[in-house]
Amino acid sequence: MSATVELLICVKCRKGTEPPADERRPGQRLFDEIAACEIPEGVTVSAVECLQNCDAGCTVAMRGDGRWTYVYGGIDEDSQAGMLLGGTALYRAAPDGLIPWRSRPEHFKRNCVARIPPPTPSPSQHKGGSE
Amino acid sequence: MSATVELLICVKCRKGTEPPADERRPGQRLFDEIAACEIPEGVTVSAVECLQNCDAGCTVAMRGDGRWTYVYGGIDEDSQAGMLLGGTALYRAAPDGLIPWRSRPEHFKRNCVARIPPPTPSPSQHKGGSE
Repeated sequence: MSATVELLICVKCRKGTEPPADERRPGQRLFDEIAACEIPEGVTVSAVECLQNCDAGCTVAMRGDGRWTYVYGGIDEDSQAGMLLGGTALYRAAPDGLIPWRSRPEHFKRNCVARIPPPTPSPSQHKGGSE
Repeated sequence: MSATVELLICVKCRKGTEPPADERRPGQRLFDEIAACEIPEGVTVSAVECLQNCDAGCTVAMRGDGRWTYVYGGIDEDSQAGMLLGGTALYRAAPDGLIPWRSRPEHFKRNCVARIPPPTPSPSQHKGGSE
């Protein structure tokens, strides 16, 4: 299994708070927690700017070739780094990115913000212009 | 300008209702409304399965090479097909997909569900395994 999937962490997340300027934001803390863990094989963790899901707490996205992209919110920066990395490994193990329901982390079941299909052409398409 | 961007419409959206089996779902009606419009040059409209933003009404996503992917909810299937297509044309006109705030449709300003950055490698990455 050689595919690489990417876990994107919004490091700008403030979780609705106004942390002092010298304090790490919750999103940055989540990223730092994860960076301190052992990253599963084939997983790349990236710090990103705002994912614009600011009302739902720490937010991450997962993506990979041929897979649905998933956005999850409500991540607890102090306790869920391991769950996230384990979930990302399961995501990588699923060729289309759809983790079987039974093995899907409970947090993923209840905190999916949105998902976006892989770029497979759909049979129902309407195109504009003549290009 | 030869880039093609894609507008994905969730045709499974029920907007929290239980429409009779013989009735088109709101998401399908939105797709049909859009398909009946003139599609802007360089825009492809695709019908997709559930984008899992079911609590926020009709949902669409926009994506294109090198661009941020955006997910918008709360689309009114009867009145916003034109706004959506105009917005998608503006999205295409922005090389990174970031429509300047002033020209951004009001609906986009208030109903962004999430966005995902283009796959440019970030300077802050942590990789797992030895692949």
